[in-house]
Amino acid sequence: MKIKILWPGRTKNAAIRALEEYYLERIQGLASCQVIPTPAARGLEERFAKKIIEIEAEGLEKHFKDEYIVCLIDAGQEMNSREFAGFLERRAAASPKGVTFVAGGFLGLASRVLERANLRLSLSRMTLSHELCRAVLMEQLYRSLSIMKGRPYAK
Amino acid sequence: MKIKILWPGRTKNAAIRALEEYYLERIQGLASCQVIPTPAARGLEERFAKKIIEIEAEGLEKHFKDEYIVCLIDAGQEMNSREFAGFLERRAAASPKGVTFVAGGFLGLASRVLERANLRLSLSRMTLSHELCRAVLMEQLYRSLSIMKGRPYAK
Repeated sequence: MKIKILWPGRTKNAAIRALEEYYLERIQGLASCQVIPTPAARGLEERFAKKIIEIEAEGLEKHFKDEYIVCLIDAGQEMNSREFAGFLERRAAASPKGVTFVAGGFLGLASRVLERANLRLSLSRMTLSHELCRAVLMEQLYRSLSIMKGRPYAK
Repeated sequence: MKIKILWPGRTKNAAIRALEEYYLERIQGLASCQVIPTPAARGLEERFAKKIIEIEAEGLEKHFKDEYIVCLIDAGQEMNSREFAGFLERRAAASPKGVTFVAGGFLGLASRVLERANLRLSLSRMTLSHELCRAVLMEQLYRSLSIMKGRPYAK
């Protein structure tokens, strides 16, 4: 299973960054997984939202090849953890190209990035901060890969 | 707004604990909030699940008075963040006794604790680890209190 995770900018919250590293190490024991922080728009105020989202979209798109793309979005499809593990399993069987997960920056993702997505996935009906969302994604990937490999998983 | 958060045992994952502290500090700027780690069953293997859950239930129940109790559970009611803020707002208006949130240990909560709950709330359709669940709860409390106070909230 080949997993790529893209998000604009390195995670600023130190505790969340530590948590990402914690899960990444465990995921890498079960699958090939790479986290790529893409260029974030720096030094622009929020009133330049369109410009920020555009710059971030370009940074993300450079990493898109012809693999299956999952964008994380509040109002996306919800799955429980078993369904998510089943989804990953089907993707692993369908293509060796793997799955790329894309999590937006603090202003979200450009509509053309969302349109490119093969799946728009929601981790929770609640709006998680864009950084916490990254850690939750990684915990779910670790959980799903553990389920797929029949490993016991800490509850 | 008076918020009490109960869970059995101090959080072991250092990154999650740091994240809890990060959100707690921010929540306390907006409301009265207390996190109480109750006694966890120590030194018992998972095959003594019933005993573990029983010991943890007793520890939690000692803190129950006649306030409104919300238990976190996978298969509970889902809300989006605005609905959750609305729920907190209604509770704050309804009673000065506040709201107590209860998150289970790695084996979950005893059925009698769940039966005592006024609300069983699910933070995600996905199963979050019992420790990550604590951090997500605190982020949502911080977000909701910010929404209630009309404060800008980091996305």
